[in-house]
Amino acid sequence: MANIVIIGLGSGGFAAFLAIRRNDPDAFITIIEKRSYQMFSPCGMPYAIEGIIDLDKLSFSLPEDNHSTKLLMHEATSIDPIVKNVMAKNLGTGEILSIPYDFLIIAQGAVPFIPPIKGARENLGNGVYVLHDIESAYIISDHAGKGKKVAVVGAGPIGLEIAVALRTKGLGVVVVEMLSYAMPRALDRDMAKLVERPLEASGIKLIFDQSVKSINGSPVNSISVDNETIETDMVILASGVRANIEIARNAGIEQGNWGIRTNAGMETNIRGIYAVGDCIETVSLINHRPTMMQLSSTAYRQGMVAGTNAAGGYDTYEGALGTFVTVLGNLEIAATGFNEFIAESAGYKIVSGKGHGKSKPEYYPGAKDITIKIIADARTGKVLGGQAVGEGAGALINVIALGIRCNIDVFSIARTEMAYCPMVGENYNVLNKAADFATRKLEKAQKEK
Amino acid sequence: MANIVIIGLGSGGFAAFLAIRRNDPDAFITIIEKRSYQMFSPCGMPYAIEGIIDLDKLSFSLPEDNHSTKLLMHEATSIDPIVKNVMAKNLGTGEILSIPYDFLIIAQGAVPFIPPIKGARENLGNGVYVLHDIESAYIISDHAGKGKKVAVVGAGPIGLEIAVALRTKGLGVVVVEMLSYAMPRALDRDMAKLVERPLEASGIKLIFDQSVKSINGSPVNSISVDNETIETDMVILASGVRANIEIARNAGIEQGNWGIRTNAGMETNIRGIYAVGDCIETVSLINHRPTMMQLSSTAYRQGMVAGTNAAGGYDTYEGALGTFVTVLGNLEIAATGFNEFIAESAGYKIVSGKGHGKSKPEYYPGAKDITIKIIADARTGKVLGGQAVGEGAGALINVIALGIRCNIDVFSIARTEMAYCPMVGENYNVLNKAADFATRKLEKAQKEK
Repeated sequence: MANIVIIGLGSGGFAAFLAIRRNDPDAFITIIEKRSYQMFSPCGMPYAIEGIIDLDKLSFSLPEDNHSTKLLMHEATSIDPIVKNVMAKNLGTGEILSIPYDFLIIAQGAVPFIPPIKGARENLGNGVYVLHDIESAYIISDHAGKGKKVAVVGAGPIGLEIAVALRTKGLGVVVVEMLSYAMPRALDRDMAKLVERPLEASGIKLIFDQSVKSINGSPVNSISVDNETIETDMVILASGVRANIEIARNAGIEQGNWGIRTNAGMETNIRGIYAVGDCIETVSLINHRPTMMQLSSTAYRQGMVAGTNAAGGYDTYEGALGTFVTVLGNLEIAATGFNEFIAESAGYKIVSGKGHGKSKPEYYPGAKDITIKIIADARTGKVLGGQAVGEGAGALINVIALGIRCNIDVFSIARTEMAYCPMVGENYNVLNKAADFATRKLEKAQKEK
Repeated sequence: MANIVIIGLGSGGFAAFLAIRRNDPDAFITIIEKRSYQMFSPCGMPYAIEGIIDLDKLSFSLPEDNHSTKLLMHEATSIDPIVKNVMAKNLGTGEILSIPYDFLIIAQGAVPFIPPIKGARENLGNGVYVLHDIESAYIISDHAGKGKKVAVVGAGPIGLEIAVALRTKGLGVVVVEMLSYAMPRALDRDMAKLVERPLEASGIKLIFDQSVKSINGSPVNSISVDNETIETDMVILASGVRANIEIARNAGIEQGNWGIRTNAGMETNIRGIYAVGDCIETVSLINHRPTMMQLSSTAYRQGMVAGTNAAGGYDTYEGALGTFVTVLGNLEIAATGFNEFIAESAGYKIVSGKGHGKSKPEYYPGAKDITIKIIADARTGKVLGGQAVGEGAGALINVIALGIRCNIDVFSIARTEMAYCPMVGENYNVLNKAADFATRKLEKAQKEK
């Protein structure tokens, strides 16, 4: 009977647990988790702050299982790969446990990145916050009284989700982003415009191309950006996360630039030790270069692979695309693969096609806008990325994600026979349309050669 | 300057018109259309009868264009492929026009099939109806007074859409289907159950495995099925359509089993004459056998191809999948490719995987069910079909449609990184889940060999 230890019960650890159980009904599974509750949905937190869902409902438990132990409120403090055990500290009593393993899965996630802004660390938890767990969501909710002002640092998906949540609750909201438009890692500037306009219309002030120089006062009363000082009662840092690698590194587990390095079986350089999710460095499925991909769905699939392999099965993870979707107010935004900037930085010559349409025909009540952009390799037509803003954005992006995964060209996406009915879309699907445009540009470019 | 004539202004004719204009700004286009208005959306009619949209809003006009003539209320009566002209009758004045063409596109659509039921033809328009155009939608709406009873013949998508529309308006509704479950051409029995239950819960009576023997009375007062007589004030025939091929056949244009035969360029056996949409026999994209595919989206793509070629461009249509989506009440139903019966009839040994999930995580208000089934070739794993019932069904089916088109296996669909956010779905996407199940079954079957 194999003894399998999982450190961390996020998406990756959860998926690993299920995969182990599927592959080996007898394996004994020990889960080590710092939190006092089993699982929770981090992606739901901004919506809970907004009041759409209950914060209390974001946590849930694993299925019942006789062959497992869940050590909640325990922190893994070290791994000994020679004797094969993990030391874990009971955060309540201080007691140290030594837990032996045959196979170990590290799914420790990431820790928030605190940017080197004067006043950030000093005021952390006291006017400066990071949304990282349910506790921090409660603190932010409590602090966010009506009429107050908040500055959000970072215009990525999470920064903007928080901005919308707090704006909806009546706060004055400013978002400061170092780069020059919203969600710059996922979107191109033209698509970002479609996101920025409704945010600004809702009263959120967006400041681009500026960084926060200092957070001033105690209690916090303002932030200074490059060329102005902005009054605020509260600062939320949404500057990303860093892989939680400390105990892995101390155990001699190899690191890449972004986190723990694994092979396609999710195994680290030490046999029998796997790592998944936000704490690892993964590879891009497009150009097979190392990359960081801190998404719940990615962690889930990696967890399945690690769990299967740890339990004696065989599985591989081939790489990540970065497919994501978010909803800001009533606006759905999704993307997958490379945006233009990243594609060009990776050496591609690109062509793109954009389609604009309605979620239902014009004559239908409740028809909403949808815009989709598809990006392809100008030499081969192979799809490299997609971005969509509007009703059904996520679902359309899933089609592009399959296309990228399978090395498909824009012509094939253009010609895919998609479902039509006036209740759910238009006769000439907006993705077909975008891909047709890209195909025509491609043909034109090839003729001109 | 080329003279191009289009007979029929449905999806196919419309798409042809746009494609001609894109490829040849100078072509002169003549459109011959029987209706008194330009275009309309047949797929919207059941929803208009239900009262969700205005019947008046279903018709719309082509974009303005200086190099074209639209002959509304004109019926094409014959084609002379030697002298290259079309005779068209003005349905108002009876005048006959002779219209010369360099290229001709036949996009005449289909005519309703009136099944050989005693009393059907006799009472047509007088208690027995077919939903075929806006006029017939008005007649059905007028006749459908509250408290009345209606029998619908055929439990395909259109029959069921009409059944739901009239049930919503308060009528007593019986649906009679010769085959043994709902939407038998698109769904398998297990998936059909998910459609039948809510229909029955809404008060619609579904009668399977029986055919209508006679429509009785004048005015109609009942129908007789194999073993009972059912009172009704009104019968709606939803037994499908037949390609409208008469003038094409008279002109010597080759026919297949289901309609006008074309090559992949949509050209008939007579050079310069193209045919698209419901009036043609197309091929299956899966096994390349002739088939019938009377869908608006299919006609649209075929129209693009014919228009491009007629205007001197180059394009091909490779075949149809039958991707469709409908909404019955609040339930979305979609399918693409082969169902189990059709796949097995075509000689495939199949494996399937089914995933059930929620449109949002459980903790989210408004989470709705979604079930998806994926069907694959048990030898190769290549995807052959998909069926989905529930929230977002159509969008998920589009992913499978791309998979079928590109000869992709279930493994690749399982591994496609799909967009996740608690506002729009679950962490472990239901389609990934279904494809994972199918992959495991496939692996098991291959091990057992």
